[in-house]
Amino acid sequence: MPTAGNPIVYGSWDKAPGKPTVLIYAHYDVQPVKESEWDNPPFTPVIKDGKIFGRGSSDDKSGVMISIWAVESMLKTDGKLPVNVKFLFEGEEEIGSPNFKDFLGKNKELLHTDFAVTGDDAQYSDSVPSINLSSRGSVQLQFNVKTANTDAHSGQFGGKTPNAVVAMSQIISSFYDKQGNVAVDGFYDKVLPITPQQKETIKKINYNPATDMKILGTTAEVGDTSYSPLERVWYRPTLEIIGMQGGYTAPEGHSNIIPGNAMARITCRLVNNQNGDEIVDMIKKHINKNSPVGVTVSYKFKPGYASPMTTPSDTKAFSYIAETLSKVYGKQPIKMSTGGTGGAMLSFKEILGVYAYSLGFLQADEKSHAANEFFRTSSIRRGQIVYCYYLQHVADEESKLKK
Amino acid sequence: MPTAGNPIVYGSWDKAPGKPTVLIYAHYDVQPVKESEWDNPPFTPVIKDGKIFGRGSSDDKSGVMISIWAVESMLKTDGKLPVNVKFLFEGEEEIGSPNFKDFLGKNKELLHTDFAVTGDDAQYSDSVPSINLSSRGSVQLQFNVKTANTDAHSGQFGGKTPNAVVAMSQIISSFYDKQGNVAVDGFYDKVLPITPQQKETIKKINYNPATDMKILGTTAEVGDTSYSPLERVWYRPTLEIIGMQGGYTAPEGHSNIIPGNAMARITCRLVNNQNGDEIVDMIKKHINKNSPVGVTVSYKFKPGYASPMTTPSDTKAFSYIAETLSKVYGKQPIKMSTGGTGGAMLSFKEILGVYAYSLGFLQADEKSHAANEFFRTSSIRRGQIVYCYYLQHVADEESKLKK
Repeated sequence: MPTAGNPIVYGSWDKAPGKPTVLIYAHYDVQPVKESEWDNPPFTPVIKDGKIFGRGSSDDKSGVMISIWAVESMLKTDGKLPVNVKFLFEGEEEIGSPNFKDFLGKNKELLHTDFAVTGDDAQYSDSVPSINLSSRGSVQLQFNVKTANTDAHSGQFGGKTPNAVVAMSQIISSFYDKQGNVAVDGFYDKVLPITPQQKETIKKINYNPATDMKILGTTAEVGDTSYSPLERVWYRPTLEIIGMQGGYTAPEGHSNIIPGNAMARITCRLVNNQNGDEIVDMIKKHINKNSPVGVTVSYKFKPGYASPMTTPSDTKAFSYIAETLSKVYGKQPIKMSTGGTGGAMLSFKEILGVYAYSLGFLQADEKSHAANEFFRTSSIRRGQIVYCYYLQHVADEESKLKK
Repeated sequence: MPTAGNPIVYGSWDKAPGKPTVLIYAHYDVQPVKESEWDNPPFTPVIKDGKIFGRGSSDDKSGVMISIWAVESMLKTDGKLPVNVKFLFEGEEEIGSPNFKDFLGKNKELLHTDFAVTGDDAQYSDSVPSINLSSRGSVQLQFNVKTANTDAHSGQFGGKTPNAVVAMSQIISSFYDKQGNVAVDGFYDKVLPITPQQKETIKKINYNPATDMKILGTTAEVGDTSYSPLERVWYRPTLEIIGMQGGYTAPEGHSNIIPGNAMARITCRLVNNQNGDEIVDMIKKHINKNSPVGVTVSYKFKPGYASPMTTPSDTKAFSYIAETLSKVYGKQPIKMSTGGTGGAMLSFKEILGVYAYSLGFLQADEKSHAANEFFRTSSIRRGQIVYCYYLQHVADEESKLKK
């Protein structure tokens, strides 16, 4: 189905009149690749040691395919499904779902549902299930620093000519204080204190810094140590530079220039009541205030931003997910949050009136967004079992309630 | 003739026994190009409005061709030259002439000469001739900042994971103090005070900041204002970032990552007794001291560095150049310096025992090293006349001295 951007894929099975409807969300779009960093071509998947390597294998082709295969297997086995099912696969999740809310609004009747789940989500590990109950929002912008119309000969002009890369570095440095907090005026104004309940959630998780450090190959954790690492990732906002370029950077050769231009891309992860438009304004004011002399700044905006969101755990929709995971994994799911963004999920509540609960099978070490992204083949089978069980469980429990 | 790097082109005309020998230096190698920034293909020259556009048209194909055409015209007109001539065209000037000194040493006999000039140099303007009497040295290095083995999902890991681009920006910012001076310990230790004679030279030049600012399209001059702009460019050292790259910087798309790697290239312009190896050591110490936590730095070195140099103006070799320029331009040349580097020139004095004087026709606005480099076609004819007159003048004056 067309949108102003990439089309949305919709499909439904509605032959269970009187039964509830479950809407399953996932997204088919993926992050761009830096092909040179991949061991195998990113769009020619390779299966090795129980892992499928390829862009999107984890984020979020897994979400698309596991639910389809689960439904296919039920239809092949039983000739029918225990509930009505609607598939909704988006193509703009990675750029902040700029057309998704509008699409939901225009197709409210068609998409009417009793329950919604998203396959764009993670489990804590192979053996420990989890349900994410909050996610950060995000907003992006690109800014360009111009100090000259042309690169300048570093001998002929060096000593009096502004350098765009140096100016850009100074602006980027000015974004942070010594604790690693964001030094942009007003940035934390709408950030709420971390609640006792949130602290409790984190306490229950046996967080080991070494795990993620091993995944990434980092040698240190950074950030304001007055918050624990998981508090920072789940409940505190960030301002990250996701890329920066200026001057002569070809792998070979050497160009003795003073660069006249540089660009950088910013992503902020937002929490609580932070508003993307307001945050962008604050950043622009900060850049204007902190630009060295001789610098002209321009901006290029990415469409859309995603608000932070939280999902309640005192609903029957939550219980059905939790009970399903308990059954399949043999233990209670832990309640978690994610530092990531599920912008589209907020629209479900606003437009369709249902919360979309996490029912995805990504894991933290699978290099989402990075080179050599992979997905565990074992998660495919486990995920299919979970989806089959979940659809049956919803049917059974709702049928009990009717009696 | 082969060297350990690019070959050197040598040619001679030696049919004037008893007459002096003039050696003419220029270089055929050029700076790399960023092709997308050029209005015309950089290696398919285009003549437009009295200008030849193309990489190297100015720096330094002009130096190579003007002297060849001058000699050619004399041979065609007179059947002979007034002096013996040796051409020496290098192919590694733009990377600091790493094999040039060695080549001179091995071919000392062959290259024996009475006078030497370099076509890799500039005139003040179309109507005002000039002779450069000092140049800065230069040294280059590339450094890489690594914070992780892989880019990280900015949601999943953002808040606790070091960002290579931010770390790189902080290191680059740390290179400078608030006045724009270099904040690397020891950097200025071997820089001598600017002499009254040097101040006098600058005073004679009607320096107008607007001229270069218009050439480059800059809106401000930067640097330590306790020195004048020309003092800073001619007699003070610099540390410039000539390029920096990290994270996702493709023109389209948006990758929500925390970059794990960034690279930057540094060029320093050196003066007086500054030594390239010592400067590189100081920079490495500074980077180690100023690297944020979680950062691993590695280095990649460019071969060779060029020492700063000065050339005296109380020699007959200087007088022959000055008299030639006076004759052709109708006015005395002004004594200047250049912020650029003529590393090979130092080797002439050291190995061949002669100073190489500037006799080139570049001009400051011709975008050497940048996109859309050009050379004035009018400078070709004027340059040829200068070279013809110069060779005849050397013959005449030397012959007078013999009598």
